[in-house]
Amino acid sequence: MKASRFLVSTLKEAPADAEVASHRLMTRAGMIKKLGAGIYTYMPMGLRVIRKVEAIVREEMNRAGAVEMTMPVVQPAELWQETGRFDKMGPELLRIKDRHDRDFVIQPTSEEVVTDIARQEIRSYKQLPKNFYQIQTKFRDERRPRFGLMRGREFIMKDAYSFDRSPEAAKASYQVMAQAYRRIFDRFGLRYRAVAADSGAIGGDLSEEFQVIAATGEDAIVYCPDSDYAANMEKAEALAPTGPRGAATQQMTKTPTPGKSTCEDVAALLGVPLSTTVKSLVLATDLLDDQGAIKATQVWLLLLRGDHDMNEVKVGKLPGLAGFRFATVGEIEAHFGCKPGYLGPIHMKQPVKLVADREVALMADWICGANEPDFHITGVNWGRDLPEPDLVADLRNVVAGDPSPDGKGVLAIERGIEVGHVFYLGTKYSQAMNATFLEEDGKPRPLEMGCYGIGITRLPAAAIEQNHDERGIIWPDALAPFTVVLCPIGMDRSAEVKAAADALYDQLLADGVDVLLDDRNERPGAMFADWELIGVPHRLVISDRGLKEGQFEYQHRRDTAATKVPAAEAAAFLKGRLAV
Amino acid sequence: MKASRFLVSTLKEAPADAEVASHRLMTRAGMIKKLGAGIYTYMPMGLRVIRKVEAIVREEMNRAGAVEMTMPVVQPAELWQETGRFDKMGPELLRIKDRHDRDFVIQPTSEEVVTDIARQEIRSYKQLPKNFYQIQTKFRDERRPRFGLMRGREFIMKDAYSFDRSPEAAKASYQVMAQAYRRIFDRFGLRYRAVAADSGAIGGDLSEEFQVIAATGEDAIVYCPDSDYAANMEKAEALAPTGPRGAATQQMTKTPTPGKSTCEDVAALLGVPLSTTVKSLVLATDLLDDQGAIKATQVWLLLLRGDHDMNEVKVGKLPGLAGFRFATVGEIEAHFGCKPGYLGPIHMKQPVKLVADREVALMADWICGANEPDFHITGVNWGRDLPEPDLVADLRNVVAGDPSPDGKGVLAIERGIEVGHVFYLGTKYSQAMNATFLEEDGKPRPLEMGCYGIGITRLPAAAIEQNHDERGIIWPDALAPFTVVLCPIGMDRSAEVKAAADALYDQLLADGVDVLLDDRNERPGAMFADWELIGVPHRLVISDRGLKEGQFEYQHRRDTAATKVPAAEAAAFLKGRLAV
Repeated sequence: MKASRFLVSTLKEAPADAEVASHRLMTRAGMIKKLGAGIYTYMPMGLRVIRKVEAIVREEMNRAGAVEMTMPVVQPAELWQETGRFDKMGPELLRIKDRHDRDFVIQPTSEEVVTDIARQEIRSYKQLPKNFYQIQTKFRDERRPRFGLMRGREFIMKDAYSFDRSPEAAKASYQVMAQAYRRIFDRFGLRYRAVAADSGAIGGDLSEEFQVIAATGEDAIVYCPDSDYAANMEKAEALAPTGPRGAATQQMTKTPTPGKSTCEDVAALLGVPLSTTVKSLVLATDLLDDQGAIKATQVWLLLLRGDHDMNEVKVGKLPGLAGFRFATVGEIEAHFGCKPGYLGPIHMKQPVKLVADREVALMADWICGANEPDFHITGVNWGRDLPEPDLVADLRNVVAGDPSPDGKGVLAIERGIEVGHVFYLGTKYSQAMNATFLEEDGKPRPLEMGCYGIGITRLPAAAIEQNHDERGIIWPDALAPFTVVLCPIGMDRSAEVKAAADALYDQLLADGVDVLLDDRNERPGAMFADWELIGVPHRLVISDRGLKEGQFEYQHRRDTAATKVPAAEAAAFLKGRLAV
Repeated sequence: MKASRFLVSTLKEAPADAEVASHRLMTRAGMIKKLGAGIYTYMPMGLRVIRKVEAIVREEMNRAGAVEMTMPVVQPAELWQETGRFDKMGPELLRIKDRHDRDFVIQPTSEEVVTDIARQEIRSYKQLPKNFYQIQTKFRDERRPRFGLMRGREFIMKDAYSFDRSPEAAKASYQVMAQAYRRIFDRFGLRYRAVAADSGAIGGDLSEEFQVIAATGEDAIVYCPDSDYAANMEKAEALAPTGPRGAATQQMTKTPTPGKSTCEDVAALLGVPLSTTVKSLVLATDLLDDQGAIKATQVWLLLLRGDHDMNEVKVGKLPGLAGFRFATVGEIEAHFGCKPGYLGPIHMKQPVKLVADREVALMADWICGANEPDFHITGVNWGRDLPEPDLVADLRNVVAGDPSPDGKGVLAIERGIEVGHVFYLGTKYSQAMNATFLEEDGKPRPLEMGCYGIGITRLPAAAIEQNHDERGIIWPDALAPFTVVLCPIGMDRSAEVKAAADALYDQLLADGVDVLLDDRNERPGAMFADWELIGVPHRLVISDRGLKEGQFEYQHRRDTAATKVPAAEAAAFLKGRLAV
C-alpha cells in the first residue's frame, strides 16, 4: 500500500472523553471515529487491524473443525421469548418494532438463533459433533459505554456454538475450543492468561476467560507463579486453612472505640493487626409466595476477617443464600439493636443465621462490634463467648500471598482485560427450545451445548493497553495495520531516494510482506511521529545521506536507536526480523 | 474441505413461499435459512458464495483506489435529520429508540455517515480525490419482502462514496468506478448489461445500473443489438419520430362503442390497428400555499397511442408536471362531463392543459373517446378537429422495435435484475451537511460526490436466476461454493477408492484448487443429486470400476455425459477446465 492511496489521518489531541490509552491512541492514530456513544466507524487504519484479528480467528476456528455461517443482526423476538430472554434481559437488549409493529431485537449474542438452526439441521447422533460460528456485528445497549472499543455498544464478536450427544462429548468439544483459543492468542503475540471462571448454575469448572494482561484491565486475575493455577477473582480460592483453632488467651472486653466504625480504624486505634479484627455483614433472603409477595425473611450475619472482602458469587452459592440481598437498616436495627458500624455476633436482639469465613472460624482472641455505637469487643473466642457458627465456608476474595489451592506456592494478582470466553452450556438452551436429536436407541435427547466468544474489536484495544508508550502504539507483528513502513526522506526531491524506495517496496510486496510506502513527502519528524503513533513495528528510513553510504536505517518500534543496514541486504534483513 | 467437516444439508422440498428459482434453490441447497420475513441466515454453503462475491468486489475496489472502512449498522438520527432523510424516508427506514429514548436508525445506506466522516477528514483539495467504501449489513424494512435474497430486509451491500474537487473530477471518479464495476461483473462470469438510468433531479447521464440478464428479472431493460445503447425502461428513449404529419383522409365521426372502454376493445370492435387509437390520461398538479393547503389545481390531459404506456419519470420531468398525481373521478367529471373510459380531447366541459406524445402529435385520422359513455370518435385530425396540443413530448415507455436513439437499429427489450448502481450525486449531501474543503484559492467549496452500490447478497440470487436447470444451480466457477467436488463411490468399502480420492484431494488442495471431498459415504444417486442441486461446476467421480481401467469420470455441471480421464492426468485435466 502507498500512503497516498490510503487514509493516514493522525490527530495531535485525544478526545476529551478518552479515559484509557487504547481509546486515546486509536482515535489519535485515525483507527476509529466516534459516531455516537459507544458507536464507532472502523476507519481504514483500524479496519486493517480488525481484519487481521478476524483472519487469525477464522483460520483457527476452521482448523478446529468449526463451520462458519452468518446469522442475522436483526432477529425476531419469538425465539427470544422461547428462552425467556426477551423479558429477562435488561435494557442492554436493544428492542425494535418493525413497520408492522412486530418485535425484534438486535443480536447481543445468538444462542437462540443457532439453537433454532440446530433443531432444524441436526436430526441424528450421526451428525454430531457440530460447531457453528460467525464473525458478526453485535449490539449491547450499555448503560455507560466508554473506553472506546473496550466497552462499546456496537462491536464485532466471534461467537461459536458446539452441539454434542453427551456431556462428555460436549466437554471434549469444549477442550478443542479451549485449545484453539490458546493457539489464537499465541498467534496474536500478546501476553495473556486463560483463567477459570465461574460457570454459574451449570456447575463444574468448564468456563474459562482469556485475559490479556494489562495494568489498566478492569478484571483482577489470580494466578500461581509456581503452577498453572489461574482463575478470575469471582472464582479463585485459596487453599483451605487447617486447624487447630488457637486457644483463647484474652478475656472478652467491651472497649470504647468512639467514631471508629471500620475495622481499619479500630485496628489503628487499638494498635493491633487488621487481621485480628472481624467484620460483620448482614444479608437477608426472602421467601416469596405464589404471587411473588414476601412470606418470610431470613437474616444472615456473615463474619469475615477485617482485611478480607466478601465474594458475592461464592456467598450466592451457599445453601439458603441464593438470591441474597443486603439487609435494610430497619432489619439490622431489629436484629442487632444498633446501626451499621458497630455490629457483631454477640448481644444480638433477635437470632440470625451465623456464617463464618473459613479463616474466621479458626481465629482466637478476635475483635468485633459490640452492637452498641462507639464500642467494640476484644478478646472474643468461639465456644466460650458465642456458639459455633451455623455454617463455615469460603466467603471471601483471595488476596495476594494466599496459598494456592493446588498447594504449589502462593497466589499473585494482576489486572486483565477479558477478550475471550469458553463456556460449557449444557442443555439450558436446547431444553428451553426443544432442540433434540435422535440417539442410537431411537430416542430424542436434548443437544449438549457450549458457547465460545472472542471480542474481535475489543482485542486491538486490549493489545494497545498492553503495548504502548508515550509516543503511541506498539503492535505485535500479527496485529499491526502494516508490518513494515518505508520512510523515504525527500522522495520528491531525490530521484535516487525515490528509486531505492520504490524498488524495495516492490521487492517486499513481491515477497508477501505487508508493507506501506510513505510517499506523502512529509518532513521526517512528522512522518516518524505518525508511524510511532500508529505503531507499525518495523521501520526502514531511506535517505540521500544513507544512500551515499549504501545504507538504510532500520528501527523496531521498541528500539531506542536505529541500525544501519546495507541497502542491498535490506529486504533479507527485514524478513529476518519479522515474526513468522 | 471434507464434507464430513462441513454442513451439507439439502432439502427435497422448497418452502411454500418461494416464488422464484433462486429462492427455491438456495433454500433446498442449504445456502440460506429463513429466520423471519426477508431475514435469512447465510448458512455455511451460502456464506462461501457470498465471501467469493465480497473478495472479488474488494479486490477490484482496492485496485480502483478506493479505501475500505466499516461504518456502524446502528446510526444516530441526528445526521439523518441534517439531510432531512430521517423524516422524508418512509417506513423502509427502520427506526429505533435506545435505553435513553434517543432516536437511531439501522443503515439502509450510509451517505450521511460517510459525508460526516469526509467533512472531518478532508480539509484541502490536496487530499482529493478520495473514495471510501464498506461491505456491511444493511436493513430496509420492505413492505413486502420476498424472493429470498432478491428482496430481503436484511442484506449485505457494498457501498462506496467518492469525493472530488469539481464536477469534472467527480465525473472522472464516476468513470473509474463504472470501469471497476465492469471488471467485477466480468469476473463473476455472468451475462449482464450496464444500462443508463435516470439520475433524477441531478440530471445528466451519470447514472448506470448493472443488470444481470434473467428471464425472471423484475426490471425491463432496453438495448440496441446493433450498438452499445442500453438503458432501463424509465430512462430509455426511442429516436424522435419525424414528420410530416399525415394528411386527414377521414371525416370526424361519433361512433357507438357500447361497453368498450379500452383502446384494445375499441380497436377490435372497429377492426383497426391498436396504433390508430389514442388513450387519454388525466393528471393533476396542485399549487400549495405556505401552510401546505391546496391553493389551485391544474388538470392535464395526456394523449398516448393506444399501444403505448406512460413513462411516469419522463412525465414528471415536464415543465409544470413535477409532483403530478392522477386526477380524481370528481375532477375528471368536472372537466370532461364523463366518467373514465370514454374520455377524449374533444367536447370538454372545462379547458385542460393538453400534452401529446411525440407519436400522437404526428398522427392523422385517429380514434379517441367522445366524452360520452359508450361512444368514441373516429377520423380525428389535429388542427381541423381540435387545436394543436399545448405541449408535445416523449411521454411513453419504449417498445421492442422502436428505432434506437443513436440511429443504429431498433431497440430490443429483455429482463434484468439490478445488482449494481453507479450514481453521480453532485453536492446534494455535502451542501445539506456543510461538507466543504478548501480550494487552492483558500475558499471553501462543497465536496462533489458519487455513490456506488453492489448488492452482495442479491448477486448470488441473480446468478442463479440466470444459471439453473431442473436439477439445480449451475454456478460460474468464480461464484461456486466449491469449484470442484470429488465424489468417491464406496469410499468406506474400498481402500483403493479412498486412497485415490485422498491423494487427488491433497494434490488439488496443494495446487490451490477450491475442492470438496464428499466423504459422507452417500449412495451415488443421492450424492450426485446433492451436488447438482448445489451447483458445483466440476465433478470427478472415483470408483472401483473406473480405477480398474485407471480412469476417473469428469463431468461439468452443464455437460450431459461424463468424460473418462486417466487417473494420473486427472489433476492436470481438471485445472485445464477451471476458468482462470
